[in-house]
This record gives sequence, structure tokens and C-alpha cells, in this order.
Amino acid sequence: MATDAQQACFEAGIKFGSLYHQFAGTPVSPSSTRSLEAAMAEAIENQPFCESVSVAIHDDRVADAIDHENGYTELTGSLMDVEMRIAYEGVTVRTRMTMRDGYPLMELVGVDDEADGTPGSGTTN
Amino acid sequence: MATDAQQACFEAGIKFGSLYHQFAGTPVSPSSTRSLEAAMAEAIENQPFCESVSVAIHDDRVADAIDHENGYTELTGSLMDVEMRIAYEGVTVRTRMTMRDGYPLMELVGVDDEADGTPGSGTTN
Amino acid sequence: MATDAQQACFEAGIKFGSLYHQFAGTPVSPSSTRSLEAAMAEAIENQPFCESVSVAIHDDRVADAIDHENGYTELTGSLMDVEMRIAYEGVTVRTRMTMRDGYPLMELVGVDDEADGTPGSGTTN
Amino acid sequence: MATDAQQACFEAGIKFGSLYHQFAGTPVSPSSTRSLEAAMAEAIENQPFCESVSVAIHDDRVADAIDHENGYTELTGSLMDVEMRIAYEGVTVRTRMTMRDGYPLMELVGVDDEADGTPGSGTTN
Repeated sequence: MATDAQQACFEAGIKFGSLYHQFAGTPVSPSSTRSLEAAMAEAIENQPFCESVSVAIHDDRVADAIDHENGYTELTGSLMDVEMRIAYEGVTVRTRMTMRDGYPLMELVGVDDEADGTPGSGTTN
Repeated sequence: MATDAQQACFEAGIKFGSLYHQFAGTPVSPSSTRSLEAAMAEAIENQPFCESVSVAIHDDRVADAIDHENGYTELTGSLMDVEMRIAYEGVTVRTRMTMRDGYPLMELVGVDDEADGTPGSGTTN
Repeated sequence: MATDAQQACFEAGIKFGSLYHQFAGTPVSPSSTRSLEAAMAEAIENQPFCESVSVAIHDDRVADAIDHENGYTELTGSLMDVEMRIAYEGVTVRTRMTMRDGYPLMELVGVDDEADGTPGSGTTN
Repeated sequence: MATDAQQACFEAGIKFGSLYHQFAGTPVSPSSTRSLEAAMAEAIENQPFCESVSVAIHDDRVADAIDHENGYTELTGSLMDVEMRIAYEGVTVRTRMTMRDGYPLMELVGVDDEADGTPGSGTTN
């Protein structure tokens, strides 16, 4: 059977894939970044075991991506940073999406299992 | 060639299809309806010729659609009302989505062509 | 009231917005273009008044858009051409999406109203 | 640091969330199920570490979900079964989505870590 930590990581991945593929492609401009950030975070926080989501869409990157004539672009991973915390049966998983070599990478930041009795064990920072 | 009024109706349809298929499936609960409404409206208002969008997600319908164990549901047309106003070359198109016989229907409410010299001509109400 | 031709154009727009925002963001590589084209066309042909949809995803553009390490990219308007024919109450609307000045543009190609008694009237080609 | 098995489970979750939120809401009828199944599987198989995806959309459930007048419905989790196999650094993760108490549940079926030297260890069946 899968361990609680493995299950927690599976749940964390589900949230990341959901967030990305639900909202990628959304029309966005510097005037609509705040409402989109809030909606993305609150939508995914509805999902089971999801403790917190923070989404930061960078206005300057959005502005740079806009073709003059249209005044907006479509949301992609390169325009935002995302952090999430998932909690499952005493295991807390922290994840983030950031740019790495020009490519938006979803990654596990830390897996903390209370049952280990070692606070912070299993984390990368 | 298509008339300005036909072009305006085409643009109105694009916005409606975009809004629906971008956001349908988003996890939603009564605690996240306001941020989702705002994000949907502001996102689609970015698109060309789109003057205004209003989205009303009904908290009571969301609550009714929620399976107890999970605490959220997925956004569908039956949970919301949408109104939009599109303006293209002097033609204003008003559209809405509402429930009709249990099915969410996108419909043209009015097509006002300033060039007609008849304010309000071509509208249904 | 909206004319049949205006209503037909509205319906055509809905299909285009639906197709774009349902499928934009889908992971795609040269080995999966054919199945995605077929699914997109058949899915949208389900919608009311939609007579035919053809989707051509350009393998060479997909290959060019791929970052070596990953082997796939995400579907955007710049990778494909789309043509649709909508029929509503005797009015046939032809639409397409193609690249124009580096930007994917959805446009009305022709609006043929049988009631006009002028086959082909109202079309651009 | 996360273990390879945890990382593999995270990757498995990403694929599941991606598949679901990319394709939920797609118009579907019994005549378009095969093309949609193929496109979904091939699209997600493009993603890193994803060895195989199988999607079975049940024609009878689709038919039951269709409102007579329209002839199609929108894809939801209740209409399909999905199985995936993810491979990451010697760890193979098997996952599936099936109906459980009327709700589509994504679940880990097995986590096989070659490094354990116990073929099949860590699996539920």
C-alpha cells in the first residue's frame, strides 16, 4: 500500500495539474491579474487536503507578453509563481512552480511527516 | 461581406464560448464564488470589442450541488447567469446565459445598430 | 429581434470560442497531432447548428515550438488552422482561424442567406 | 529531500489533475467518444515520466446523460475510467480514476520501487 507521504505527494500533484490546466489560456492583462490570482487560489483551496495556495502573476511579464494591438495575452506558466501546501494524515507537502531554465517547473519543496518525530525531516530547506 | 451587425454577433459568440469553456469545471464552493465571478468577468473583458461582462454564480445552487463529503462542486452553466455587452463599429450586442427548461442557453438579447438611425431597433426588449 | 443571419453568426462565434478555450493548453507533440485534431473537430461538431469543423495542427510548427528537454509543447492558436461551417435557419456561416501578422485571428469568411435568393451573396470569396 | 517514490507519486498526481481539468467540459456524444479517448491518452502521454494512459468513456453513460434536445453532454469524471502508469527513477506508480459512492475518485493503485528489491512491494494488488 502507498504510504501516507506518497499519498500526500499524489494529492499535491493533482492540485498542481488542476490549477495549471484549468486556468492556462485565460485572457489576462495587468488590469486583471489580481482577480485571477484570487480566483485561482480560492478555487484550488476547495480541493481535498489543500491547506493553502498562493498565486503571483507578474504584471511586468504580462505586460511584456502583450501584443500591442490586442492589449491582453493568455495565461501560461512563465507568467506566474505558485506555492501550495497540502496536508494529508499528518504529512505536510510543500510545492511550488517557478521558472527554471526558461521552463515553468512544478516541484516538491518539502515533505514533512509528523510520524517521523523529526520536525522538518525530509525537507529541502 | 459580413455586415457590421453580423460581425458584432460573431464577436459576441466568441466571448460566450470562451467564458464557458475556459471556466467550466473550476472547483467552486459558496466561499469562492465572489472571486470566481470577478476573475471571469475581468478575464473576458480583456478580449477585443467586449465592453462589459457580469457573472452571477448562485450560492444556493452551488450549495445544493455540493456532495457532503467533498465540500465543493465544479462550475457548470446551471450554476450561473452571465450578461455581456459587445460593441463593434457602432453596433452594440447584448447577450445573456440563463436556464431555459433546465438547460443553460446562450442567447442574443439585442442588436442595436447606430447606423440604422433607430435607437433600440433590432432589440427584443 | 436579431435576424437569422445575426443569430447564425452568434452561433458560429460560440463554437470558435468553445474550441479554442477548451483545447488551448493541451500537451501536444508531432506524434499526437492527428488524434487531437480528430477529437477537437468531433467534439465541437456535437454542438447545435455546427455542420462541420476541420482542424489542422501543423507538425512543423509543433516541432519548432518544442523545448528539447521536454518533447512536447502546449496547444496555442499559432500552431493550427481551423475552419467551420455553421447552419442556422437557412443561413450558412463559414469561419476560419489563421495567422495574421503573427496573431491567430478568428474571422467570418462568408454569410450565405438562402432567403436572399442570391446564392453566395454576402460572402467574401 | 523527497524520495524517488514520493516524487513519482507527485508526478502521477500532476498527470491526473492535468487530464481532468484540460478535458472536463468537452462536448461529447456516443459518436465522438473514441476520438476523445485517443486524444486524451496521447496528450497526457506527452508529459514527462508518463509511460501509458488509457481512457474509457462509457457510451451508455454518455447516452444517459444527454438531454434529448441537444444530442450531446459535457465530459465529467462520472462518464469515464482512467488508468495511468508513471515511471520515475526506477519507481513505477499505477493510478486510476473510478466511481466510488457516486463520486469520481483519483487513487494510487500501486507504488513499485525497484530499489526495494521486492518486486511488487508497496502495491495494493
